[in-house]
Amino acid sequence: MTKPYVLGIDIGGTNTVFGIVDARGQVIASDSIKTRKHSNFDDYVQELHDGVLRLLEKNDAEDKIQGIGIGAPNANYYTGEIINPPNLPWEGPVIPLAEKVSKAFGGIPVAVTNDANAAALGEMTYGAARGMKDFIMITLGTGVGSGIVVNGQLVYGHDGFAGELGHLIVKRNNGRMCGCGRTGCLEAYCSATGVARTAREFLEVRTEPSTLRNLHIEDITSKDVYDAAVAGDKMAVDIFNYTGTILGEAFADMVSFTSPQAIILFGGLAKSGDLLMKPLQTAFDKSVMNVFKGKTKILLSELKESDAAVLGASALGWEARNRFENVTTEVSGAETEKS
Amino acid sequence: MTKPYVLGIDIGGTNTVFGIVDARGQVIASDSIKTRKHSNFDDYVQELHDGVLRLLEKNDAEDKIQGIGIGAPNANYYTGEIINPPNLPWEGPVIPLAEKVSKAFGGIPVAVTNDANAAALGEMTYGAARGMKDFIMITLGTGVGSGIVVNGQLVYGHDGFAGELGHLIVKRNNGRMCGCGRTGCLEAYCSATGVARTAREFLEVRTEPSTLRNLHIEDITSKDVYDAAVAGDKMAVDIFNYTGTILGEAFADMVSFTSPQAIILFGGLAKSGDLLMKPLQTAFDKSVMNVFKGKTKILLSELKESDAAVLGASALGWEARNRFENVTTEVSGAETEKS
Repeated sequence: MTKPYVLGIDIGGTNTVFGIVDARGQVIASDSIKTRKHSNFDDYVQELHDGVLRLLEKNDAEDKIQGIGIGAPNANYYTGEIINPPNLPWEGPVIPLAEKVSKAFGGIPVAVTNDANAAALGEMTYGAARGMKDFIMITLGTGVGSGIVVNGQLVYGHDGFAGELGHLIVKRNNGRMCGCGRTGCLEAYCSATGVARTAREFLEVRTEPSTLRNLHIEDITSKDVYDAAVAGDKMAVDIFNYTGTILGEAFADMVSFTSPQAIILFGGLAKSGDLLMKPLQTAFDKSVMNVFKGKTKILLSELKESDAAVLGASALGWEARNRFENVTTEVSGAETEKS
Repeated sequence: MTKPYVLGIDIGGTNTVFGIVDARGQVIASDSIKTRKHSNFDDYVQELHDGVLRLLEKNDAEDKIQGIGIGAPNANYYTGEIINPPNLPWEGPVIPLAEKVSKAFGGIPVAVTNDANAAALGEMTYGAARGMKDFIMITLGTGVGSGIVVNGQLVYGHDGFAGELGHLIVKRNNGRMCGCGRTGCLEAYCSATGVARTAREFLEVRTEPSTLRNLHIEDITSKDVYDAAVAGDKMAVDIFNYTGTILGEAFADMVSFTSPQAIILFGGLAKSGDLLMKPLQTAFDKSVMNVFKGKTKILLSELKESDAAVLGASALGWEARNRFENVTTEVSGAETEKS
């Protein structure tokens, strides 16, 4: 008695987007709520439930949801919990996400994972990684996230926290401070914020002219650097060369690890085109071991950004199992009555 | 009709060791031949076959071999071939190892993998990684090899060559030349030869006295450094501190990748005791991300070195499938006649 839809939920720092998705990866309908409106997690779940229910009713889909998949920062696949969320307003350190959402929805199975893993699942199910059993997803946003797929399965590690490739050390000496408390992480250089930091460093250390000097140095964003580079500003182009080179060198190490068929880029910075991709590919080709040369493709995500987070989360919904046994009992009853 | 034994074969640069292994990981009997005696691969396989047959006959095991597992440098699990072997005498670039050995033995299923992967399989089946689904095997020998296990499966990557952790870049600038043609690889620092190179560097650059100065600088081995360190030579101790620190920092990056339950060390250098393990553990604890702190154990192999290679290879024998169809036909006939 498989039901035709899953629900994908993407919990971001600002918005929580949810959508009804069919087996072919079509987003039937979607809506969102503000993530930070309630500091009490139960109130948030209640509002999420109400919003989803309205969407289901509008689309005559109340009884058609097979499972719910949720992508959220620091969400753990094994425990169903969010652990120490850096950008979420609820009291931690542990938020029982899957259990509470499953209960709110009368026991529908819920599976959760972090946002980058969700993106990898989405890409494997509906995007550029269809048919691939070994690939790595890299999300270039405010931070650098990653989802690693080996033998067709997401790599969760023994504790559910594997895949922190944004925190590979790329500068062992005098590296930049990173939000993780260490120094020299990939994320400190190759995220959107990393690009802005590079701009500030270049502006301070170099003396050549640049249109970036017209901006207030503390407010410079990666978007400013991109716009300046597109307009031909040499320093801005150099900033992308620097960023792409570090990424390409790090990708070579990733290939030595799991020898993926492709590394797939997603997120705002990934849309910088040749400005980023050319130096990245050049550094990668130069750095990768001979045995892997010419084998691993560097690709861009094929998912529409507006759909990607929901699609990725929804892919997890198909494999969600009912893991909260006290709930199972309730739900079996409810389901029997309904059907 | 499962047969009670498998054959494990370890092809090393000097010796080829083979053993009859039972399901509990007991090496019933073993023997060896010289790997480099024949420059023609068919002649080598013939001698291997004859040697194995003698061993089987002596142990009344001719009809009791379920499968053959072979560990060899640069052996590819997917293709059954050795590709560009660096230390083997046969004409390449591609040696059809599994096919030729299977044919020589009348079609017994053969599976091959590289030596570090075989060590990981051995450790998972019979050693320190029993019961673990996520761990990394690091072999510290002439080079640094690795076998990565995720979700209970060896990571082969899309091409069968995954797990080159000896070639993670640990020095991005002014790194040592590595046999792989690049610079700054882990292997150039933390293998037995890497330790000897460090000794030569320290002796040239530093001015303090050391008993190592009594040796001919070009002939210094990691064993010399070990002996000097055990005898209290400060520079020799520093060489192990340097080596262990680089290893510990690299291990922290490995944990960010697959979050293993343990990293297991094998090989000559791994037997250096606290000289290596103390600085390694200190650097690891300092370098690993907070989310992983205190979770990943650094362990030593539990396999006897004399048995380990054969045991590791043999573990693969249980899962070997007959993949050479023209052979299958012949063998089915032969098997029917026998039974």
